[in-house]
Amino acid sequence: MFESAEIGHAIDKATYDAAVPDLREALLQAQYRLKAQAKFPVLILINGIEGAGKGETIKLLNEWMDPRLIRVDSFDVPSDEELSHPPAWRFWRRLPPKGHTGIFFGNWYSKMLEDRVHGRIKGAELKLATARAQRLERMLCDEGMLIFKFWFHLSKDQMNARLDSLKNDPLHSWRISPLDWQQSKTYDKFVRYGEQILRLSSRDFAPWYVVEGADERYRSLTVGRILLEGLQAALAAAEQPGQSVAQPHSAPLQVDLDHLSLLDSLDLSQKLDKDNYQQQLAEEQARLSRLLRDRRLRKRGVLALFEGHDAAGKGSAIRRVTGALDPRMYRTVQIAAPTDEERAQPWLWRFWRNVPERGKFTIFDRSWYGRVLVERVEGFCTPEEWLRAYSEINDFEEQLVDADIVLVKFWLSIDKKTQLKRFKEREDTAFKRFKITDEDWRNRERWDDYGHAVADMVDRTSTEIAPWTLVEANDKRFARVKVLRTLNEALEAAIEKGR
Amino acid sequence: MFESAEIGHAIDKATYDAAVPDLREALLQAQYRLKAQAKFPVLILINGIEGAGKGETIKLLNEWMDPRLIRVDSFDVPSDEELSHPPAWRFWRRLPPKGHTGIFFGNWYSKMLEDRVHGRIKGAELKLATARAQRLERMLCDEGMLIFKFWFHLSKDQMNARLDSLKNDPLHSWRISPLDWQQSKTYDKFVRYGEQILRLSSRDFAPWYVVEGADERYRSLTVGRILLEGLQAALAAAEQPGQSVAQPHSAPLQVDLDHLSLLDSLDLSQKLDKDNYQQQLAEEQARLSRLLRDRRLRKRGVLALFEGHDAAGKGSAIRRVTGALDPRMYRTVQIAAPTDEERAQPWLWRFWRNVPERGKFTIFDRSWYGRVLVERVEGFCTPEEWLRAYSEINDFEEQLVDADIVLVKFWLSIDKKTQLKRFKEREDTAFKRFKITDEDWRNRERWDDYGHAVADMVDRTSTEIAPWTLVEANDKRFARVKVLRTLNEALEAAIEKGR
Repeated sequence: MFESAEIGHAIDKATYDAAVPDLREALLQAQYRLKAQAKFPVLILINGIEGAGKGETIKLLNEWMDPRLIRVDSFDVPSDEELSHPPAWRFWRRLPPKGHTGIFFGNWYSKMLEDRVHGRIKGAELKLATARAQRLERMLCDEGMLIFKFWFHLSKDQMNARLDSLKNDPLHSWRISPLDWQQSKTYDKFVRYGEQILRLSSRDFAPWYVVEGADERYRSLTVGRILLEGLQAALAAAEQPGQSVAQPHSAPLQVDLDHLSLLDSLDLSQKLDKDNYQQQLAEEQARLSRLLRDRRLRKRGVLALFEGHDAAGKGSAIRRVTGALDPRMYRTVQIAAPTDEERAQPWLWRFWRNVPERGKFTIFDRSWYGRVLVERVEGFCTPEEWLRAYSEINDFEEQLVDADIVLVKFWLSIDKKTQLKRFKEREDTAFKRFKITDEDWRNRERWDDYGHAVADMVDRTSTEIAPWTLVEANDKRFARVKVLRTLNEALEAAIEKGR
Repeated sequence: MFESAEIGHAIDKATYDAAVPDLREALLQAQYRLKAQAKFPVLILINGIEGAGKGETIKLLNEWMDPRLIRVDSFDVPSDEELSHPPAWRFWRRLPPKGHTGIFFGNWYSKMLEDRVHGRIKGAELKLATARAQRLERMLCDEGMLIFKFWFHLSKDQMNARLDSLKNDPLHSWRISPLDWQQSKTYDKFVRYGEQILRLSSRDFAPWYVVEGADERYRSLTVGRILLEGLQAALAAAEQPGQSVAQPHSAPLQVDLDHLSLLDSLDLSQKLDKDNYQQQLAEEQARLSRLLRDRRLRKRGVLALFEGHDAAGKGSAIRRVTGALDPRMYRTVQIAAPTDEERAQPWLWRFWRNVPERGKFTIFDRSWYGRVLVERVEGFCTPEEWLRAYSEINDFEEQLVDADIVLVKFWLSIDKKTQLKRFKEREDTAFKRFKITDEDWRNRERWDDYGHAVADMVDRTSTEIAPWTLVEANDKRFARVKVLRTLNEALEAAIEKGR
């Protein structure tokens, strides 16, 4: 969930200085249009890692925009008066009216997260609290409110560096929070439960935006752009005559400011020589065969799914997985266009029918992620449909994991040059020609669109219960061994946990 | 929540026989239109009290409609295959395709309800299960499905009579369920937890319909009419060009078949003579004053709200409540049209700002129920808005009760004749003339519409945590004493429970 926010996004000063004046001007204009329309309010929730620039961003927004139309509230220790009312009362009294913007620094999420981190509530209570938050937000959105939820993120190293620098700065030492962030365990818990909250509460009507907080310029421009584009879309929608009250959430899920995407951050030069490959492949295949026969896995299903660029080698990686297995031990499901019968059902139905039962191993060659990849990019479904698909997928996978299914998800990644080479090879080799179609060439033209869709997908569906594994697949040998090893490690972890 | 389904609804044979042919014909036509459009499926969930006619209704629907387009599934003990998949798998595999109707007899609700009744899960788990069900239904509706949820109800006496009659009938003895329904405790738990499930899972996109099951003819016609009207509305909407996927749920919340409404079932002839009244009033006022000073209530807020017909005597009843109290002990909130500031906020905001704090007593003269009464009847809000208001209100009141507020809700009911008499008195008495306006006369013309709105309101918001008290108010003395006594009993129960 935080993958794209740990890759070192940064913006240089010149680019930043060039971009800010227009952004500020546009934000101000949007703000005045919001005030003039007076049709809906805007609420910005600020959460995330200590030191990731939450406070700085709020200050900046007040500087960039007209502060008379923004109200910042921080909800820290509740007042006596607040304590003597129902918990939500303190938020209700601070809601921004139509035409205005409210920034909640510390909000319903910070409370439940801190309670969970400090062991004051258990897992079930956190889930109930998230469900309550979701009902509240649903109601606010039904009443017209436009909600932005920002999670400011730092990797653990980034956070430690940041806290160290603050500690030595007498001007900023007040910033050290009461939470003992120096403890490595606190960070881990915060991120773990934070991820859980984000997974359960990121919905199409009020999605979370995760922003890498290390570089101030990147962080500021990103927040500004997301706000601007979301606001402009909502303002335009509110001007339509027959417009429904609920605001469409049309901010981009990520803004591509520094052209550094999650996939670009992979080291695709990793390889394995032939000897090493053959040895490791044989070892991992034997290990897989042994693990799948382990009686402690008998009560669990196993599901491995493969997505990836065209020609990234999904098929050949799958063949290496199944290579050492008895055909009765696994089943491969090829996902292509849905049948008529499948089209007459909710979109997840065709995947539900192929969920492995206890003790079985199912491999999905492409999967439900087509909804947020090809269907999104090619326009086979509406933005509303693929936007809500992220939470539908997370709900679906939660059920798989709750039913003790070991779920392993692979994205096989290659670069554009490697793809071209492989496409040409396919065209030049008679027995491979069936593998290359006009569609592959068309998809290739949308390389960048697919890249954004993949980054959104990983950011929104790589969860603590069902993480993505990104596989560097320029070298097929490296990719195959990494796939097998990851799968084996997941199975071992499952056996270990089941003890 | 089950108020309207315990008043002895019945349809005579002649009316029934006259109504059925047209209903069947219309249902069949709707079914064929559904098939021809093939745009969305219909799912009917059947739940409720043992012996309330669940099975009979399913049989009847199969008889009335084309059984080739209906599939009935009952989900009782899961098969081995079902047990080895995630729990929802058994429902997914049976979902009706577009153009078809599925009836789920036994479904996600029956499972969680039985688990709760038999103590296999606790309160928090029931809430989580309901939240999961809601996410599933939300997704199905987003994908276009039209969902009807029926709860077939019997009062405890009705159920016992029904079970007795079945027991003596050799043809029907197989119907006795494995659940030991003969035990009075089972019924109580079933109704209590059932009500909780209905409160949490009745949403605008998939509301519950509670049907009194004692009279077969009434039950059958009611279900038929709700299905027909909901189907026809959804079919018409699906034919609109720019129609969104989600089906509007436009079935009436109740169908007025036997013209017996909840308010008609009240015995308005109840009265108190002057001597008794004065004695009881003084007693109850003293008791209230004593209770409100009880230190065990110091940590709790008290909220009493008054709704009722125009001229039903809300104001004078409130004056009797406050009569014996020190003005510092209470606050009265008059709800009229919202201010500009209130209009710029979500509709519940103006009530949130008046929620009593710990240790305080607040009286609402009219309340948030205006949303589903005057605003609904006069068209001040859209059907979507008042439909979702029921669950918004239940969520709101749950928060009040969770914050230890004692919540008491009164509907003061008079008949049309009494209202006329009081209107005329007001016009004839100089110092009362300010109390009667043209608006009162206009409201009076919509007497029946208000009656339906009140019945819907009570059925959908009288919950185990916040029940309605219907006050027979033709006799003002009787009404005042009943109000005071009910309030006192609620306070005593709260003190008792808090020990």
